[in-house]
Amino acid sequence: MTTTTSSSTAAASSSSLTSAPFRASPLFFHPLPASHVPLPGKEAHGSYMLQVPWSKTSGWGQAKIVPRADISIDPLSGVTQYAVTCFEGMKCYKTESGELTLFRPNENFNRFKVSAARMGLPSDWDNAELLDLLCKLLALEAPIVPSEDGASLYIRPTLIETSESFGIKEDGNAGEALMYIVTTLNLGKGLYASSEKAETGLRVDADPNYVRAWSNGTGKYKVGANYGVVNIAKKPGFQMSLWLHGSEDFVSEAGAMNVFILKEASDGVLEFVTMSLDNGIVLPGITRASIISLLKDHASGKKEFPLEGVPKNIRVVERDIPMKDIMDGAEDGSLKGMFGCGTGVVVVSIREIQYRGRLISIPYHPVVKILRDTITGIQRGRIEKEDWVVKVPKWQGVVNGEKEAEGQKVIA
Amino acid sequence: MTTTTSSSTAAASSSSLTSAPFRASPLFFHPLPASHVPLPGKEAHGSYMLQVPWSKTSGWGQAKIVPRADISIDPLSGVTQYAVTCFEGMKCYKTESGELTLFRPNENFNRFKVSAARMGLPSDWDNAELLDLLCKLLALEAPIVPSEDGASLYIRPTLIETSESFGIKEDGNAGEALMYIVTTLNLGKGLYASSEKAETGLRVDADPNYVRAWSNGTGKYKVGANYGVVNIAKKPGFQMSLWLHGSEDFVSEAGAMNVFILKEASDGVLEFVTMSLDNGIVLPGITRASIISLLKDHASGKKEFPLEGVPKNIRVVERDIPMKDIMDGAEDGSLKGMFGCGTGVVVVSIREIQYRGRLISIPYHPVVKILRDTITGIQRGRIEKEDWVVKVPKWQGVVNGEKEAEGQKVIA
Repeated sequence: MTTTTSSSTAAASSSSLTSAPFRASPLFFHPLPASHVPLPGKEAHGSYMLQVPWSKTSGWGQAKIVPRADISIDPLSGVTQYAVTCFEGMKCYKTESGELTLFRPNENFNRFKVSAARMGLPSDWDNAELLDLLCKLLALEAPIVPSEDGASLYIRPTLIETSESFGIKEDGNAGEALMYIVTTLNLGKGLYASSEKAETGLRVDADPNYVRAWSNGTGKYKVGANYGVVNIAKKPGFQMSLWLHGSEDFVSEAGAMNVFILKEASDGVLEFVTMSLDNGIVLPGITRASIISLLKDHASGKKEFPLEGVPKNIRVVERDIPMKDIMDGAEDGSLKGMFGCGTGVVVVSIREIQYRGRLISIPYHPVVKILRDTITGIQRGRIEKEDWVVKVPKWQGVVNGEKEAEGQKVIA
Repeated sequence: MTTTTSSSTAAASSSSLTSAPFRASPLFFHPLPASHVPLPGKEAHGSYMLQVPWSKTSGWGQAKIVPRADISIDPLSGVTQYAVTCFEGMKCYKTESGELTLFRPNENFNRFKVSAARMGLPSDWDNAELLDLLCKLLALEAPIVPSEDGASLYIRPTLIETSESFGIKEDGNAGEALMYIVTTLNLGKGLYASSEKAETGLRVDADPNYVRAWSNGTGKYKVGANYGVVNIAKKPGFQMSLWLHGSEDFVSEAGAMNVFILKEASDGVLEFVTMSLDNGIVLPGITRASIISLLKDHASGKKEFPLEGVPKNIRVVERDIPMKDIMDGAEDGSLKGMFGCGTGVVVVSIREIQYRGRLISIPYHPVVKILRDTITGIQRGRIEKEDWVVKVPKWQGVVNGEKEAEGQKVIA
C-alpha cells in the first residue's frame, strides 16, 4: 500500500483561514486484518505507522494510524533534494508486569521541535497530543514489544519536507511536510545489546579526515544531514567512528553516541568528563543529561546514586577533550575508562581507539556497568524514578465498545 | 501513478552473480497518451522522468523512462533518515535553429560520481550511457524546451539511498539506491533570469551564525546535506546568503553559487579573485571552471576572450577571501565588482552585502555582463566552443519505425 502526503484532510477540517493545530483527535485508524502477515524483509518492523501531514497554508492535517507502508513523495521534494529532514530516537520497554513504558518522551519531543525549527519545518505541535498518538501506536504493537532485558521496540519519529524545495524561496521554511513515526524491533542481540557489552567495549576509529560537526553548524540538532555524510568514515574491524574536530583533534561524539572519559584528577577526584554543549557541536543527549543529573545529585549528596558502587569522590566536568588528553592519560594511568551513551547503546565501554597510526588501549572501569544497569533499571521499572518514566495506556482501536476487525474507521 | 524502487528487473536481466553494469539499453519506455494533461501544480515540470534502480547484490537495474510521478520509498530509507542523497544541476537549451544542447554534461556527470562516492552511493556508471539516457529524456521534452534568451529546461539528476539505513552497518555504503532525472521549466523570468540582472545585481546577507561548510566536511560535494541545513539563514529583503567560515569570516559561496571579487591589485592588474578549491569548502563549479579557463587563456594570450571588452591586464587568483578584504576594498576603491556564477544564475552581480550590522555597497563592473553573455552565448550556440556543447539527438520513442501512442514498450 502506498500512502500520500496530501493535506486535503487538513483543509477539509478547517474552513477558516487560520492554520489547524496539531490534534490527536479525531484520529483516522485503518486496522489490519487479523490474517495480516508482514512483507518479506519487514518482519522486524511494527505493523503500523503514524502519519500527520502539514502545510503552510492549512496547518496540521488529520492524524492517521495506518498499516506501515512506503511513503510517496515528489522527486523534487525538500527531503530528497536538500535533506530537509529531522528525527528522534526513542524506545518502548515492556516491564516485568507487562506494562509498556517510555523513557522521558517529552525530552525527545522538545529536541524534535528544536531540530524541526532549525530545518524550517513546522515545530508548533502540542507534545501532549503527540504523546497521545504515540501511545496509541505503541499500544497496537504491544504484542511484539519484547520483554527480555536489553530488548525494546525502537521508535523513530521523523519529519520531512514533502513539498518542492527548489530555486529561490521567499524564506527558508518548508511549504508542506509529513511527520511520521515508525517502529522496529530491537531484540537486544546486536552490538549494543547485552549488559556485558558495558565491559567488553567497542573499538572505535578516530579519523581527522571526517569532521562530523563544527561551530555554527548543525551538530547539536538531530538532523539527517549530520549522519549520512559521515557514513563512509566507518573502518572495517571497528564498530564505529570517534568524531574529532578542531586544531587539537577534540573528541565530540562516537558513532551516534555522546562520549565520556573517566579521569583521575590531580586532587584524587574521579572526573566524568564530557564535551560541553556550549559550542553547539554535540547532540544534547537525553541519556547524557540523565547520567549527569544522577551523578551530580550523588556527588553533591542531594540523592544517592540508585545502585551501589559509584564512588562518592566524583565530579562531572563539561569541557573540550583533546585527543592528547586521552593519549597522555592512557600513558600515565590517569585515564580510568571511557564510555559512550545514547538511546541506542544506553551505556557502553570504549576499549580501544585507532588514531593517527596508533592503537590506544582504554582501561575498563566498573562504574560503566553500574551506569548502564541504572538507566536500564529505570527504563524497565526495576528502579523507581517516576518522573522519568511514562506508562503507555492500553488501546486497541476500540470504537463504541467494538473493535473494527478490518476496513477503515475514523475514531473521535 | 506511483513507481517503485524494486530491483527485480536487474535481477531478471542477469542470472549470474556479477553485478549488472549501468546500461542505456534495453530501455523500458512508458509513453504518455496524446491526451495527457499535467497534474495541477506540476505544469512547469517535464512530463517524463528517467529512473535507474541499483542494489548492492545485483548492480544496476533496467533504465526506465516513465511519466513523471511521485517516488515511493520506505519510511526508514537512507534518504529520509540520514540524508543519503546527492544531485546535479544542468540545463538544456534550444538554439536559434531549434536544436537542443547541453553545456559540458560530462563535467556534471563526473562531479555526480564524486558526490555519490562520498555518500556511499554507487558511482560506477558509464557517463556515455547516462548521457544517452538523458538525451532520450530531453528529446521527449523537446516541444517544451524554451527558446527565449535566458530560458531553459532545468535538469535535476538525483541519486538517493532507498534501502533502510539503520543501526550499525558493516560498512558505510548503501544497500539499494535509485538514480532519477527530472526536468522543470526555467522560463527566465525569475531572479536569475535576464541579462540585465548581471548589472542590477543581488543583495546578499552574510551571517556568521550559519556556517555552510568547513574543512574535512562536504562543501565540495553536491550533496543535499549542504543545502537544507542553511535554508533558514535566508533574510527577508535579501535574495540569498553569503556564506562565511573560519576565524576571519572568509567568503566561500553565495546561495548555491561560486563567488568572485574583482580587485585592482597594487601593480594595476585587475584581479578575478575566487576561493581556492584546495581546502574542499567550496563546490568545484563548472561555470566557475569555464570562466577561469576563458580568462586564463585571454590573459596568457593563448586565446582571445570570445566577446570584446575584457581588459588584457587581468589575473585569476584562487585564495581565501576574508570579509576585511571586501570592506577595505569597498572603502579605498580597489574593489571593482563582485559576482556569483553557477548553472542556475549563469553570472550575476552582487551589489550589496549586509554584514555584522553594516551594508557594504559593491560597484558594478561591466565585465560581469560580458562574462554572462559569453557563457550564455556558448550555451545557445551563438559563440562557437564545440568542445563544451553537446547536441541532443532527436528521439521520439520510436520502435521498429512505429511510435507507440500509449501503453508500455521495452525498446532494444
